[in-house]
Amino acid sequence: MNQANKKYVSKYQDSHHKKWPVGTKGIWVNEKESGRYSLIHEEISLPAAVLRQSSLTNNLNWMQQFARHHQVQLAPHGKTTMTPALFEQQLAAGAWGITVATAPQAEVAVEAGAKHILMANQLVGKANIAMVRRLQQQHAVTFYCCVDSAENARQLSQAFEQGSQPLHVLIEYGVPGGRCGCRSEQDVVALAETIHTLPGLILCGIEVYEGVIHGANAEADIRAFLASAINTVEHLTERQLITRSQPVITGAGSAWYDVVAESFADHPHLLAIIRPGCYLIHDTGIYQDAQANVMARAERNQGATCDLGGDLESALEIWAYVISRPEPGKAVIGMGKRDVAFDAGLPIPERGYRNGHTLDIDGLKAIAIMDQHTFVEVPEGHDLSVGDMIAFSTSHPCLTFDKWRYLCVADEDYNVSQWVETLF
Amino acid sequence: MNQANKKYVSKYQDSHHKKWPVGTKGIWVNEKESGRYSLIHEEISLPAAVLRQSSLTNNLNWMQQFARHHQVQLAPHGKTTMTPALFEQQLAAGAWGITVATAPQAEVAVEAGAKHILMANQLVGKANIAMVRRLQQQHAVTFYCCVDSAENARQLSQAFEQGSQPLHVLIEYGVPGGRCGCRSEQDVVALAETIHTLPGLILCGIEVYEGVIHGANAEADIRAFLASAINTVEHLTERQLITRSQPVITGAGSAWYDVVAESFADHPHLLAIIRPGCYLIHDTGIYQDAQANVMARAERNQGATCDLGGDLESALEIWAYVISRPEPGKAVIGMGKRDVAFDAGLPIPERGYRNGHTLDIDGLKAIAIMDQHTFVEVPEGHDLSVGDMIAFSTSHPCLTFDKWRYLCVADEDYNVSQWVETLF
Repeated sequence: MNQANKKYVSKYQDSHHKKWPVGTKGIWVNEKESGRYSLIHEEISLPAAVLRQSSLTNNLNWMQQFARHHQVQLAPHGKTTMTPALFEQQLAAGAWGITVATAPQAEVAVEAGAKHILMANQLVGKANIAMVRRLQQQHAVTFYCCVDSAENARQLSQAFEQGSQPLHVLIEYGVPGGRCGCRSEQDVVALAETIHTLPGLILCGIEVYEGVIHGANAEADIRAFLASAINTVEHLTERQLITRSQPVITGAGSAWYDVVAESFADHPHLLAIIRPGCYLIHDTGIYQDAQANVMARAERNQGATCDLGGDLESALEIWAYVISRPEPGKAVIGMGKRDVAFDAGLPIPERGYRNGHTLDIDGLKAIAIMDQHTFVEVPEGHDLSVGDMIAFSTSHPCLTFDKWRYLCVADEDYNVSQWVETLF
Repeated sequence: MNQANKKYVSKYQDSHHKKWPVGTKGIWVNEKESGRYSLIHEEISLPAAVLRQSSLTNNLNWMQQFARHHQVQLAPHGKTTMTPALFEQQLAAGAWGITVATAPQAEVAVEAGAKHILMANQLVGKANIAMVRRLQQQHAVTFYCCVDSAENARQLSQAFEQGSQPLHVLIEYGVPGGRCGCRSEQDVVALAETIHTLPGLILCGIEVYEGVIHGANAEADIRAFLASAINTVEHLTERQLITRSQPVITGAGSAWYDVVAESFADHPHLLAIIRPGCYLIHDTGIYQDAQANVMARAERNQGATCDLGGDLESALEIWAYVISRPEPGKAVIGMGKRDVAFDAGLPIPERGYRNGHTLDIDGLKAIAIMDQHTFVEVPEGHDLSVGDMIAFSTSHPCLTFDKWRYLCVADEDYNVSQWVETLF
């Protein structure tokens, strides 16, 4: 996409582009006057990635309501979808900003209209730093990034002391054996003292990612870690190493956002931000399990999540054909690692279709995946045939999204009149 | 890309587009008069995917020479790179055509100029069939696809009997426990008899994929299977179920192409086509191992491969920054599952750079990967620092390519003046 004249607008929303792009999988259709294409009646090339709008809307509102209920701000992690049209929906629903992992992702979030960008990662390297400086110069945007070393703080200071705008930084606080982040309160304080001496940087608060804490005592360990993070922010504020009126505290992936929000809730003087990403798409695998844990904790703790009603729904499916029935008990599906995540469980057959009608697919199970093929086990006696369609749900939405340039947005009858474009 | 006005031409080769695309990772640069950007001097945003042109050229020529030497045609599998600029190089070097796995991939190969498209897969579904019919109508192209069931043959016949051009089909011959394909010579013959009765289809030969044959006797089993496939083509020709002057026999992924080419070599009356895909990019993992086996077989058999001289080279690297040194012995790299294949081994640190100079990285090893991060083990005493760059080689090029929209093409000094665009 070209910044100057097109931003990221999908070709499907752009009247100047009537042709379908060459070779873009999952969208080829014979052009219809109605602009409405039926998946069930095979008007779209499969495999295709399909988002159910009703589930997207449900998830969008559910999480925004959750954040409001807990009086925390929501900055959805954009890395999951990298889909500007979805960022726009998240911002319109009330998101404070968009979280990103890299400088190029920050560009996309800014173009989608985010006014607050939280880069929950380190900003490293000349070109990446230059990209962020340009964003700050050209847009009315507040950009935050993480720092966990004096080395990186000095690199950033050197770059930003020359510009008109300083860089807002958060110290990343981590845990031993975890990912990035200072390993102790003492290290955080020492780094804050260093940052205090460096021009071009404004220390705004602390960032954590609790998702690296595992084990039998994960919940208690996470609560203790969050308490320590909040305690450290307050200490830094007392010492005037943080001077802004609302110091930032931010955490939460998609598995423990409830615990994080609860921990932040009693600190109204802080700008508390949660950053779940997968909630918008959800899945029927690892994030369904994580959400079940959220709900179980809510019941146990009589937490506010219970009062919200409803729950997240899996919004993403991959539709594909049975392309071969080479042996009894085995079907080969025209869908592979090129189309769907496979790192946290294989895709799950949800519904079948044949000649425009639903098809019973009870007992079908994906057992192996290759670049362009998936093997499905077929129960004895099932007449699954070449040409039958299967809609698969997935586990780990992030890794599916980056396989697609366009995803179909479908209504309840699996009619598609809109495509959204990804910008990975 | 828009078919009508742009084909697949990269924005970087298009004088009408001077701006860099928003948020496209690995390409952001401050525009320079020279159009030449140094990776080592950090003029390109990392992570970035980098192709060494010299290795690409070496691999291109090596495999084309191999095919010529064995008097087989080369139809490189396009699914590996899905990069039209690389398809063009393969065709210019003498490739007979391009192999694809899906109808959208066929569109891209045709747009890149391929006159023969070998879809080494089943063509299933109304929209996919319509796409191929349109290709045949709009381009002077010969399209072949595989069939392994009477069901699919009937579906294709129904679609193609209405058009002006018939569909060229190959019967896929497979092995018990394998992927697609008829499981015996008898099944192949029975399907050929069915196809013979169906209008709109022309049976042209047999397709195999020997890469699903594993085990201690793999080589012998593959040779026996290939002999059976050739025998069956000849039987079908004798019975006039295949009537073209040069019946097609095609096989070969990237691991056994030597054995396949040798098996085909003594049958000059056949149009023998090999379809390796990964050779152009190669790797330092599974395909390096496979190629070592090719070379060992050549030595053992005094095969023609020995006479060629040279060998394939790994042409692809991912460059990324050290973004955190949170603990002794651990570095976090700004590169993750979003950037590099991880299904057949983790990326391998090859070279390091600091402030424009090389850096010794002996003993560094990737030990885990997340969406946006890789953990690297650092030997005691190594002063690896935040901001250092590491160039990683990879295993399984296919799964890395589909993470990128643009890949840098670098010279021997890692200067980049060209980007190639992928079209997944």
